Amino acid sequence: MVATLHVCITCKAGQPVPEGEACPGARLHAALIAEACPEGVRIVPVECLSACNSGAAVALSRPGSWSYVYGRLEPAHAGDILAGAAAYARSSDGLVPWRERPVVFRKQSLARIPPQEATP
Amino acid sequence: MVATLHVCITCKAGQPVPEGEACPGARLHAALIAEACPEGVRIVPVECLSACNSGAAVALSRPGSWSYVYGRLEPAHAGDILAGAAAYARSSDGLVPWRERPVVFRKQSLARIPPQEATP
Repeated sequence: MVATLHVCITCKAGQPVPEGEACPGARLHAALIAEACPEGVRIVPVECLSACNSGAAVALSRPGSWSYVYGRLEPAHAGDILAGAAAYARSSDGLVPWRERPVVFRKQSLARIPPQEATP
Repeated sequence: MVATLHVCITCKAGQPVPEGEACPGARLHAALIAEACPEGVRIVPVECLSACNSGAAVALSRPGSWSYVYGRLEPAHAGDILAGAAAYARSSDGLVPWRERPVVFRKQSLARIPPQEATP
């Protein structure tokens, strides 16, 4: 099952965006898609992850796995974000051993959500 | 499909917990289960939603719907949290019209995650 890396492309990270400049979320998305996408990961742009004051933000999710939201991200984090997404994609349940997580994931988690069980 | 309200029961909300006192997450959970649980909602305790500095925290999720994480919650918010969870449970996709969300949900969202599509 493919892991999805949602990237908020409208995030202003709580700051005004100068006229004619791309917002922090759009710049983060551009930096992510400029790199090679890891196997088992797809990058999906989204408008607003409701983490506006802690952006730029991304969410990692996959049916049946823990979901994670990370914030305060910059384009320079793109490589580490993709490495963390790749480790997530390789895991069976979304729980990556602590030392295998990139520092940006260890320090900039905004929240996680347990797996969604399909209940009637 | 039942909506799940995950409640972090280990949250210290970034503060020391005096010896012998229940932590903020446990107190929030106690306040929630003391009220009548709305139809279509189940309350599930969880250890850590990784929102430690923005707790106490809860997450609302349901397969195929948007997921939400809310923070900085107090036991006094229990009624509003359950009203918001009930509105979420009544929605088809987790997107509740803004004016139907309790104020605590409008103002204290930490993040949301788009529906997880089952892709191969």
